[in-house]
This record gives sequence, structure tokens and C-alpha cells, in this order.
Amino acid sequence: MNFISDNAYGAAPQILASLSAANSGTETSYGEDAASARLAEKLAAIFEHEIAVFPVVTGTAANALALAALCPPYGAVLCHKDSHIAVDECAAPEFFTGGAKLAQLEGDGAKLAPRAIEQALARFGGGVHSPRPSAVSITQATELGTVYKLDEIRAIADTAHKHGMTLHMDGARFANALVSLGCTPAQMTWKAGVDALSFGATKNGALCAEAVIFFDKARAEDFAYRRKKAGHLVSKMRFISAQLEAYLENDLWLANARRANALAKALGGGLSAIAGVTLAAPVEANGVFAWMPKALAARLHKQGAKFYDWMVEPERVMARLIVSFATPEADVAKFIEMAKS
Amino acid sequence: MNFISDNAYGAAPQILASLSAANSGTETSYGEDAASARLAEKLAAIFEHEIAVFPVVTGTAANALALAALCPPYGAVLCHKDSHIAVDECAAPEFFTGGAKLAQLEGDGAKLAPRAIEQALARFGGGVHSPRPSAVSITQATELGTVYKLDEIRAIADTAHKHGMTLHMDGARFANALVSLGCTPAQMTWKAGVDALSFGATKNGALCAEAVIFFDKARAEDFAYRRKKAGHLVSKMRFISAQLEAYLENDLWLANARRANALAKALGGGLSAIAGVTLAAPVEANGVFAWMPKALAARLHKQGAKFYDWMVEPERVMARLIVSFATPEADVAKFIEMAKS
Amino acid sequence: MNFISDNAYGAAPQILASLSAANSGTETSYGEDAASARLAEKLAAIFEHEIAVFPVVTGTAANALALAALCPPYGAVLCHKDSHIAVDECAAPEFFTGGAKLAQLEGDGAKLAPRAIEQALARFGGGVHSPRPSAVSITQATELGTVYKLDEIRAIADTAHKHGMTLHMDGARFANALVSLGCTPAQMTWKAGVDALSFGATKNGALCAEAVIFFDKARAEDFAYRRKKAGHLVSKMRFISAQLEAYLENDLWLANARRANALAKALGGGLSAIAGVTLAAPVEANGVFAWMPKALAARLHKQGAKFYDWMVEPERVMARLIVSFATPEADVAKFIEMAKS
Amino acid sequence: MNFISDNAYGAAPQILASLSAANSGTETSYGEDAASARLAEKLAAIFEHEIAVFPVVTGTAANALALAALCPPYGAVLCHKDSHIAVDECAAPEFFTGGAKLAQLEGDGAKLAPRAIEQALARFGGGVHSPRPSAVSITQATELGTVYKLDEIRAIADTAHKHGMTLHMDGARFANALVSLGCTPAQMTWKAGVDALSFGATKNGALCAEAVIFFDKARAEDFAYRRKKAGHLVSKMRFISAQLEAYLENDLWLANARRANALAKALGGGLSAIAGVTLAAPVEANGVFAWMPKALAARLHKQGAKFYDWMVEPERVMARLIVSFATPEADVAKFIEMAKS
Repeated sequence: MNFISDNAYGAAPQILASLSAANSGTETSYGEDAASARLAEKLAAIFEHEIAVFPVVTGTAANALALAALCPPYGAVLCHKDSHIAVDECAAPEFFTGGAKLAQLEGDGAKLAPRAIEQALARFGGGVHSPRPSAVSITQATELGTVYKLDEIRAIADTAHKHGMTLHMDGARFANALVSLGCTPAQMTWKAGVDALSFGATKNGALCAEAVIFFDKARAEDFAYRRKKAGHLVSKMRFISAQLEAYLENDLWLANARRANALAKALGGGLSAIAGVTLAAPVEANGVFAWMPKALAARLHKQGAKFYDWMVEPERVMARLIVSFATPEADVAKFIEMAKS
Repeated sequence: MNFISDNAYGAAPQILASLSAANSGTETSYGEDAASARLAEKLAAIFEHEIAVFPVVTGTAANALALAALCPPYGAVLCHKDSHIAVDECAAPEFFTGGAKLAQLEGDGAKLAPRAIEQALARFGGGVHSPRPSAVSITQATELGTVYKLDEIRAIADTAHKHGMTLHMDGARFANALVSLGCTPAQMTWKAGVDALSFGATKNGALCAEAVIFFDKARAEDFAYRRKKAGHLVSKMRFISAQLEAYLENDLWLANARRANALAKALGGGLSAIAGVTLAAPVEANGVFAWMPKALAARLHKQGAKFYDWMVEPERVMARLIVSFATPEADVAKFIEMAKS
Repeated sequence: MNFISDNAYGAAPQILASLSAANSGTETSYGEDAASARLAEKLAAIFEHEIAVFPVVTGTAANALALAALCPPYGAVLCHKDSHIAVDECAAPEFFTGGAKLAQLEGDGAKLAPRAIEQALARFGGGVHSPRPSAVSITQATELGTVYKLDEIRAIADTAHKHGMTLHMDGARFANALVSLGCTPAQMTWKAGVDALSFGATKNGALCAEAVIFFDKARAEDFAYRRKKAGHLVSKMRFISAQLEAYLENDLWLANARRANALAKALGGGLSAIAGVTLAAPVEANGVFAWMPKALAARLHKQGAKFYDWMVEPERVMARLIVSFATPEADVAKFIEMAKS
Repeated sequence: MNFISDNAYGAAPQILASLSAANSGTETSYGEDAASARLAEKLAAIFEHEIAVFPVVTGTAANALALAALCPPYGAVLCHKDSHIAVDECAAPEFFTGGAKLAQLEGDGAKLAPRAIEQALARFGGGVHSPRPSAVSITQATELGTVYKLDEIRAIADTAHKHGMTLHMDGARFANALVSLGCTPAQMTWKAGVDALSFGATKNGALCAEAVIFFDKARAEDFAYRRKKAGHLVSKMRFISAQLEAYLENDLWLANARRANALAKALGGGLSAIAGVTLAAPVEANGVFAWMPKALAARLHKQGAKFYDWMVEPERVMARLIVSFATPEADVAKFIEMAKS
């Protein structure tokens, strides 16, 4: 019973199978292969926009490289204080940008809001003494399992653009957010003002495949160099692009995300019905964050359930339970049963 | 007929198959999985030494991260002027080290020699005005298809150590060099004074798998952080480690390398028997570098043979022909035939 | 009437005069001059300790270079959220360290406390996913004009050392803090556990002179390279070292600081006696931070008084009034009078 | 008798005097002072162009910051292999740019030529595998005491611009080159195609003052941030700008340079008349580079003459003799006498 992370599960069979298919014959290396070309076209169609696409193998690479393209060394990136880029990537954005600052803002439900951004900007009024606010980064779905509504994204984008900043979206769980909103990829990104996207696939079924997407191709001008210089240009790129192709094929990505979201919803529903357990945030994607008595969390751990004690207070624990595309349905029911008894 | 690069070919079937085997069940992510643990043990046995092992997905990442661990921001790395780290990695080592200098030295056959190192050191006598010489990096096999003999490595290591530097080996084609020398991995590395190794597998049959190996575990102290901060800690690491396990299993790596080397030897032999064609360097690994009349190279290209015109002079061209673990034997014979006629 | 900054005033006459004295004859450049040697000896005597001394020309350089020596690229520096390194140096520490993180902690009176450090460390428990906590930095006197007591420094140092971190002190206003505590330089630094010090002189009478001081010479090993690489090794160093010599000569630094502190105390006393004005923090060095009605602050500005509106609330303003070594005594009295009327 | 370096001498009396004049009253700090404003106007007049001016305190800072503004992290700077930025600044440009590459080219008389640039560019044809050639940097006067003619600069600028690169001039000895050519500052810079200039003053009479000058103000957009972030924004900037004002006042800079050049010419003439001594390069500025028998160089050192053995061969030594604005005329005559006997 493993709710530790989406990464605890392996790869979707269709994606694994794509690697064999990609293995025949010779190919041009370093991304000049046919699979990469097809992928770029496929993504452009899905996003209904001219885009620049750059496959990479980790979410940290996607985020940090994208931010380095959007924010100069003397700039600042505004993000939520609990965002992955702020607390889980060993300050990779600071390294890739050449020393930019991450301004870590407060916000309910792990979400940024225009007001928080405006207030933060007031603290950057010192000219060259403060880094120049250059980009805003939001996570969709968030690190608390919530999802930005389209108008929330729009409002943040407007605020960012008004102040000469760009908007980056960390979409490590992009598909989960997308099916949660029931909108199109275009609506959730460039139509809402997003300038650059870390398009995640690993958590939702790939082995190791993400893509950085720029909606203004000019912004991508230097990205190809940055990716190479960071050692993130995979030589046999066909094997990364093939994963992403299979991920999109027949809407596998959406099906996987729907399944995970639905199970998470069920898990959240089941847990919140238990006395003493309350949800820390609405279940809008594939993560459940539930406050429970310390003793209950301890017992569940003891009984073999794997999950993070996300926050620990004297009396209670906020359990983080992540449901992946491959989590057995039975595990969800079983966990609820265990928690009840 | 593709002699462009080892990367033009896909993956060895055994390595591809290992991914399916690795796909069952849940696993701890970020390298704390069972496959990664087994791999570390296996490599320690192969190298007959306590080692620290860090899988990554590209050779550039392996080299640049290793050098960042060996050379401070204010240091210098001494390497051959034609080495991969010097000319093919978009100055990744400069980025990862935080601005260290690559001193690019001359040397026959793409090899460094103690004398060249000593001469270069004389130019770094200016105290803080010059970066501090901190590491020497050699490529085994070299970018010209040659292989350092054990006593050559030893002599370089001694020179490096005498001057307070460490020795890094870029082993993108480690297996090819190893079977060429017919020695043990231990003999070619720590027994000869190598401190850190980029252990390549991608060119010799993996999809995307290399490993950084430190023979003094203390040197690796900070490496785990550096890998994460550079976005090179793959979340579902089992899929990278599984490739490396399969690569080593039943000596697949050695068999692949032997095959490629033998074909390269045959290709070199066939070409050098042709009037007007001479080898630019002895064929000691899986690369053939042959001077040929410009017209001949042009004709071969026209006839569909893929290879690099590595150097171009007014009258002649140095063709680079790389034979991979998967290059069809018939292609070698056919190429020689084409060149003859 | 200028209370904007210590930097608004020029240089002390004795320090200016020292430049002429330093101008005769030829000298070895880049810090190998006689003045620099004398300075190092003088500072070692003053601090009663073997030290490594590195003059530089700005406080930002002193801080950022010192932190780069104490904190690796993958590390974190714990500091107060309002500290100069966190908010006034354009993220220079992030640049000089190669991308380290500044963890910006809360604390009353712009001071850090062991408890805040311990709490922050709990958030860095994620292994390589979080930067490694490597150094703590405190400002003495603080950005709110307060001064750490000796036992407060000791407690912070103990906490830092217990967790494998070092302690840096930003002493841009070192002299002001020192005379405030009435202790020795040794007591306020290494005897209290400080590992590295940015020793400020510019704000207290120099033209452009600070010094980075390490109390463990081994820690300074790489500093000379870092200073050069950052363009902070002044060629005619005698002119920087001469400033620092004159600064220390006949205890000029202490006299200047005592004068400024006393005037600040008088200014604080005068203001706090005015109805509607309250001190935001005790006046312990040369800065006065006073809450006053918005209208009063506006009137004072209008009447020609220069000072920062440090914080602005709907009804009131926190005025920052800095008294320098050269602020006319009459200005203090006059300002109080103006505020009263 | 000191011919070691221009830096061995102190400051011109007029420049020293300017510091006292600059010391009265309060001023806005961080470059917003009246002296800095006057300096910017004065330099614009001298260069007959709209410019952006940024005073800094070292030549290394000027060069490295300028190059960081002209060359992205993934770029390359083409320069002479013996240039100051390549061999005397501890790889500061690599640090400030975030890891750019310095391509170090050959060239007679320490000069670059269009042909060498074109040849080097051919080695950067690998797309993202090579850093993007972004800037060319030349030193005027060169590290071998030679001076680029106006048409030589123009030809280099044309070559650089044709390939999408910018041209930086390291003018640590700008005045010496200017009076040598007898042209205007405009002619030697923007009229010849120079985009950015490190305008040196320290070697020619200042205590610690250089200025970075951009002839296209747009290129300077981010420079103010970079200077601050690197700790090179001096708080009491009036004292740096005052030095530069005095340097330009009454053409002091030109007079100092003319004096030094004339003495160098005399020194070169005297030495070249001695049997066994030959000039390694024509004396076009304030440096003399003379081959002499090893025994002669050794004797001169023994007799107390300070100079560098710039290159050492088995039989002979290339002595570097730098004449500064303040070198006593008698020393030149005396040195020639000593060398003769």
C-alpha cells in the first residue's frame, strides 16, 4: 500500500512498449530524430499553438532550465513558499539562473494570488539593490493537491505581465489538473497567459520524460544551448520522445490522470467521513492531504501503509497520500478500512 | 550505412528487456531502490574497490558533475585540446564548476602526456592571477580512437598527484578501451591512479545511462547534492540502474565492445589497404580515422555512407567512422568495397 | 539634515590623509605591499588571534565572498529575513556561492535566535532535495539598530556548530556594536564562536574599505582565489589597506562609533519623548527606528530632513534615521525640534 | 628602479587631491551623486556619443562585468591567447558570465586578426555542442605593448558583427594607445565598431578607478544590476567618480600617457642599440619587451632593477619593462646604462 509518491510506481505498459518500437534502425542523435519531430507536431496540435518543445528527463531540470530562460542572473522568481522549485529541488533554479532569487510567498492551498504578488513586488522597489522581479511560477496541480481555476491563472498572468514578468507553470501534474478542470491544454496555458510550461509525464506513467514548452518561440531562442550546457540533451533522444509520444497517444495521459484523480477523490471522501479526520485541502487532483490524530497516522504506518507525514503538530499529523495512475483500486478501499477501524 | 556515431544506434535488446523487468511493483524513488543498490555492489565487485556510484543519463552530465566535484570554481582542469569536455559539451564543465578554466593542451593521437602537463603548469605560476590547477582529465578511449596504455595513465596520474591535482577519466567508451588493453577495470582506473571515472554505457548499448564513479568515497561527499541540484537525480532511478545492471550482466558490455572494436579494426585494415587512404591514428577502439582524397569522401557521402568529415584540408579529408555494438557486419565490408571502387 | 545612511557622509579626515602618506614610492601590487602586511598584524593584535585578513572595497563583496567560502553551491545560509544579505545585495550571495539558498528566518528586533534556527533546520531534512544548511549569518549591529549580546552570539554559534554549520558576522557596523557592548573585538567574535567576519569601515569613516577576516586560517585557504576571480583584488591595494590602518590608528574607529552612537541615543531619546512617536527598537547603535504618524513624517520630509520611510502602514510610518560619525550634532537637536513643533 | 608594472606606482597628485575636494558635505550614495553625473557627461563629450558609464575599482571587474553583459552563459568570447582576460584574471570572465568559454586565439604581437577569428569560428559549427560565439575582446594597448591601428580595429569589428558578435575593448591602457595613434577616443572606439569598453585609469594615475562604457545604451540595460550583484557598486561612489573626473580634467590622462610612452620609446631605443638585445615587439605604448641574454637579465635583477622575465628560453629571456606615468626619467637612462656595461 504505497501512497508515498507518484514516482513509487513504474511506467505505463504502453509507454514501456514504445521503447521497443523506437529501437529499430539508426537515427540522428541529440533530438534531431523522427520521434522528436513528431512529438513537437503532436504537442503543437494538442496546445493549438506554435510552440517550442524540449524533452528532458526530470522535473527539476524542466523547471530550472525554463526559469533560467525566463529570469536573468540578477532577477527574481516569485513563487509559493511551499512550491517544489522552492523547497524540493536543492535550489536548482538558483544554480541554473546563475544566482537569481526565489521570492517565496504565502498563499492558501499552496496557491499564489495576485495580491500576494503585488505585495511582494513592493519589497523589490530598491532598484539594483533588489533582484529584478522577472518571472512568476505556479504549480498546476499544486503541492497541496489543489488546482488553479482558469480565471485564477489569468489573474496571475495579468499581474505578472503588468509588471514586466513572465509566467511559468510547473506542470509536473499537468494532466491531473487538466482533467480536473475539464478544459483544453490551450485554455489552461497560453490562453490564460502562461508563457512557459514544464509539461510532466514521469509522475503520470513515463519512465523519465518531461518537456519544456514555450508558447512564444522567441523565448526559447537560447534554450537549446542551455539544455546542452546543463547535460540535459540526451544523445539517444528518440527514447525520451517516444515515451512522450506514447503518453499522448490515444489520450493515455488523460486516462491515467482521470483514474488517479477519481481514486484520490474516493480516498479523500472515505477519509473525511472518519471522525477525527479532516481534509487539509479539497481533493482536486491526485493528492489527498488529511489531518488525522497522531496515533492514527502512526498505526497506519505500522500496518504497512506508506505515506508522508507532511506536517507534524503536537496532536495531529497532516498525511500526504498520493494516488498514481497505477495505484491498485483495492489499496484505496483497504486504506480507508484500516483508517476506520 | 551509418558510421556517424555510436549514438546513431538504439539499445541492446538485453538492456531494453531489463526495463520491463524493472517495471513491476513500487519502489523507493530518487536512487534508493533495489536495482541501484545491486548496481553499486556489482560495480564495486567489478572494480575490486570501495566506490561511490552515481547513475546519470548523459555523458556530459557525468563529466561536468565529476569535474565540479574535483575542481573548485577558481580552479583549472587540464585536458587535451580536442577532448569532448573541451569542444563538444557547450562548456558544461565551466558551468557546473562555477567558472573553472579548461586548459586545453596539445598532444599526439588526442592524448595528454606528462610533459605537456608540466609545461602547462608553468603557465599557472601566477598565484591567484591564474586559476589553481586542480584536475587532469583524460578520455579513454580518446576522441581519435586511440587508447592510453596502463603506464601512460599511471604517468599522467603521478604527474597530476605530484602537483596536487586529481585525475578524471572520461570513459564514454570505457569498455572499448578496456577490451582493447585486455586488462581489468581496476588496472585501468584506480590501480593506475584514476580518482574519478565517467563510466559510459549509452554509446555501447544503453538507452541513456552512465555512471560517475569515485574511488575515494570522501571525494563523493558532495556529489549527491550536486547531482540533485543539476536536475540529474532521476526520480524513477530504477530504470537507469536497470540499464546499467543489464549492461554488466553476463559481460554484455565487454562483448559489445569487442564486437565493435573488431569491426573497426577490420574497417581500418580494409581502408588502409586502399591507395590514397591512410589512417590518421591506429585503430585501438571502435573508431576509424582515415585520411582520404576529398573526392573519395564526397563520393562515399553521395553513395549514402554517413560519417563525419572530421578535418577538412584543401586536398584531403579525415573521415571519422564510428562502429557501434550494433553496426551490421555487412556494412563494414560494403563500405570498404565502395571505397575501393 | 541627512539621516538617510552612513554612506551619505564622506570620509574621516585622518583616513583621507592616510592616502597621501601611502602615495610615496613604488610598491608591490595586489596586496603584497607593506601597508597590507602592517594591517594584518594590527588586526591580529586587535583581535588577539591568528587571522587571515582580506581587504575589499564594498560590504556586499565582503559578505558574499565570505559566504562563498563558508557555503558550497548546494548549501544554504540561514539569516534573518530583513538582513542586508537577504534584501539589499541583489542576491549577491546566491551569485558568489554558485546558487546557494538564503533561508530567511523571522526574529524580533531583526535578530536571529537559536530556536528559529532549529525550526528552520527541521525544514531541511529532505537529504539532497534541500540544500545543505552550511552557515548562519548574523548582522552586528542589526538592520534595526539593535545589537546582539555576547551570550546571544554564543548561543547562535553553538547552535550553528552543533549542526555542522559555521557562523558569519556581517559587521558593516561592527564598531558601533562593539562600543555599544563595551567588550573586546575578540569577545564579540571568535570567543563567542564567530568563524568569519565582514569587518566594515566604510560606513564609519573610510572611503571604500572593508575586510574579510577568518579566525580559522584554514577556512581562508581558497579565499584569495575567490577575491581575485570576483575582481575584488585591488591592484594598488596599499590605498585600501592604508584606509584601514588609519581607521584603527589611535582608536579612530571606536571614537567615531561612540560619537555616532551617542548622537543616535540622543535622537532616539528626544523623539520618544514626543507624543505619538515610539521607538520600534531600542537604540543600541547608530540607527534610530521610530514609528510616527504619517503626517509627521511627511512634514519632516517637506522641511528638508532626509531619512527613509522604512515601513509604511496606513496610519503611521517607521522612520529610519541613521547617524554617522560625521553627522553634525546640531542636526540631531534640530530634527527633534522640528518633530516636536 | 621599478619596471614591474604600472601598478607599482601610486596615484597622480591631481587625482589624490580630488578626493579631498570630493569629501565635503553629504551625497546620495551608490552612484547617484553629482560627481558621477558630471563624469558621465564629461565622458559622453569626450567620446562624442551617447554612452552608459559605470565606474568600478578594478580592471578585472570592468572586463568580466562587460563580457557578462555581452556574452550569455552558453556563449564564447574570442580573444588572444595571451590577453589579460585569458591568463591574468583567474578566469573571472568564466565566473561572471556563468560559464562562458574563452576561445584563446593565436596572433602576432599579441593582436587578434580577422583571419584568426574566422578560423576559430569554423570550430564552433557544432550547433549547441559548442558555445555560441558571442563577443570578441581585444586589448588596446596589447599585453605586448603594441597598438591596434584604427583599420585593424575596424576589420575586427566588421568580422565580429558579420557573425553576430559584439566587440569589447579592454582599455586598461587606453590612454597610452590613444596618444600613440594620435586619434580621438571616438575614432578608436565606436567609430571603429567597438561596442563596449573597459576604460582604464588605475594604471595611468588613479588609485582604483576604471569605467565600463557602452556605446549602445540598450546593451547596458542589465549592467547596473550585474555590477551591484557582483559587489562592485561602491557606496561612496563619489570617491571613485572624482578620481575619473580628475583623470580627465585638463587632459591629465593624455599627458600622463604621453610621458610614459615617450620614456618607453627611449628605453626601447636605448636597449635595442645594445648588442645582443632585440625588441620582441615595436614599442607603441608604455611597455618594452626586449629579448636579452639570460646572463644580462640576471645581472640587471641583481643590480636592483625590477622587471618581469616574461618568457624564458634556454639562452635568452624576454624582459617586460613597463614605464608608468610616474617612472622617474632618470631610471630609464640608468637602466640603459646598466644594461650596456
